[in-house]
Amino acid sequence: MKNFSLFLVLISVIIISPVLAFSNTHTKIRKVVVIVVMEQEAQPIVEKFSLRKIKSAFAAAIPVKAYKGKIDQLRIFLIVNGKDKRYGVDNVATQPATITTLLAIEKFKPDLIINAGTAGGLGANGAQIGDVYVSSKSFKFHDRRIPIPGYAEYGIGSYPAWDASKMAKNLGLKTGIVSTGNSLDMTKMDEKIIKSNNATIKDMEAAAIAWVAQLFDVPVMSLKSVTDLVDSNKPTQEEFLKNLSLATKNLQLKLAEVLKYCSGKSVNELSN
Amino acid sequence: MKNFSLFLVLISVIIISPVLAFSNTHTKIRKVVVIVVMEQEAQPIVEKFSLRKIKSAFAAAIPVKAYKGKIDQLRIFLIVNGKDKRYGVDNVATQPATITTLLAIEKFKPDLIINAGTAGGLGANGAQIGDVYVSSKSFKFHDRRIPIPGYAEYGIGSYPAWDASKMAKNLGLKTGIVSTGNSLDMTKMDEKIIKSNNATIKDMEAAAIAWVAQLFDVPVMSLKSVTDLVDSNKPTQEEFLKNLSLATKNLQLKLAEVLKYCSGKSVNELSN
Repeated sequence: MKNFSLFLVLISVIIISPVLAFSNTHTKIRKVVVIVVMEQEAQPIVEKFSLRKIKSAFAAAIPVKAYKGKIDQLRIFLIVNGKDKRYGVDNVATQPATITTLLAIEKFKPDLIINAGTAGGLGANGAQIGDVYVSSKSFKFHDRRIPIPGYAEYGIGSYPAWDASKMAKNLGLKTGIVSTGNSLDMTKMDEKIIKSNNATIKDMEAAAIAWVAQLFDVPVMSLKSVTDLVDSNKPTQEEFLKNLSLATKNLQLKLAEVLKYCSGKSVNELSN
Repeated sequence: MKNFSLFLVLISVIIISPVLAFSNTHTKIRKVVVIVVMEQEAQPIVEKFSLRKIKSAFAAAIPVKAYKGKIDQLRIFLIVNGKDKRYGVDNVATQPATITTLLAIEKFKPDLIINAGTAGGLGANGAQIGDVYVSSKSFKFHDRRIPIPGYAEYGIGSYPAWDASKMAKNLGLKTGIVSTGNSLDMTKMDEKIIKSNNATIKDMEAAAIAWVAQLFDVPVMSLKSVTDLVDSNKPTQEEFLKNLSLATKNLQLKLAEVLKYCSGKSVNELSN
């Protein structure tokens, strides 16, 4: 009898826990945090949506900038990583993205996080320059190799990407797994892990953002616009710089469609 | 005349700015935050100093644990990254270390941060298993390859390590540059960059911690105990597991000496 009660409790926990984890999945999305890493990716979004800068959003030492605005029924908070004070470049890679996500969650308590940016694509999996991809399944790392049982899986990460497949289908957006690493280029080892991750998109932040998001049980997806095909023979940095304008233009257009689509819906309604 | 005044202002700023950046370098260190990544590295330190756990130090979603205690005149806060709830392993690598550092700075406002842990050593630069190294010069990354001018230097990082060479000399500790990457193993590319970084220590967190510390102008050093020689032919993971007990024991002994040395001194007094 005691065992049966325990069994019932366990079954209840198993059934209820995903609902508890994301408790607001059935209510309308009110607040979306859009995390963008580069100024050049952010500026067209600020202009497109007439976003206003939030003064002193974070501690003075923190380079992260925040903008706010409204799109239909949605409150939008655009968070930009800001510049490195020593090198004067955008704070790319996973370390700044991690604290940006933490600060944005603490400050704005979003119902949904969208990491919008440019990325590399795998041509072998169908990616073309200028394509905008919605994340699918999970975010993985390809540069955290820790060959100890348990740590190996932790290193890859596999933090959940919110299922937005219905939205992607309705908006005509491609979907794919995103694999994250701290380098713009790709070694043979990176390539091997990206392929074993079944990734179509190679970026430099998404898995770190997803790691923080899952700590707080905030649904997260990414929207990545392809600047270069990492499995072509062309150097990533040249292709990246050549196609950055096209990719940021497409990103801004598709982000607008995504945000309008999200307005008035619950996160559950983005899934199949 | 106007140009000469401008010149004087500029010269003053250049002379004063390092002093302003670290405004408390001449006053006695009151609070030290010790950041440790693995439970197994932290436990001997908790016991050695009879540290007490701080309840609800951070938001419930955050796995980071905090302990406090006193050593002579110093208030010590030991911060441990905690476990990944999905994989049940310690939150190693740079992403968790980044938010741990941010939270520890915000909460405890330390005068000095010490990242204490185990690491790989470069035998070619004199490292031996069980050695405990104090960081010198700067913390660098070896897995952030971004071959675009400005970004390349940002990727490497070179965030300052507090000059504790006098302390190291008095305590008989070796010093060396720490190079950080997210993998326990080392590819040929990693090795090339670690060598061009002139590093003696290869770890998985220090440069990320130093990046956050420099945002807030908090002096930071690391104390790294060598578990394995990355330039030997033995697999890092095997050596790491074999020598982890020895390395954590040495780490705890040397950390005690370092903290006692710091007590009653300013950070300036740690330098030559």
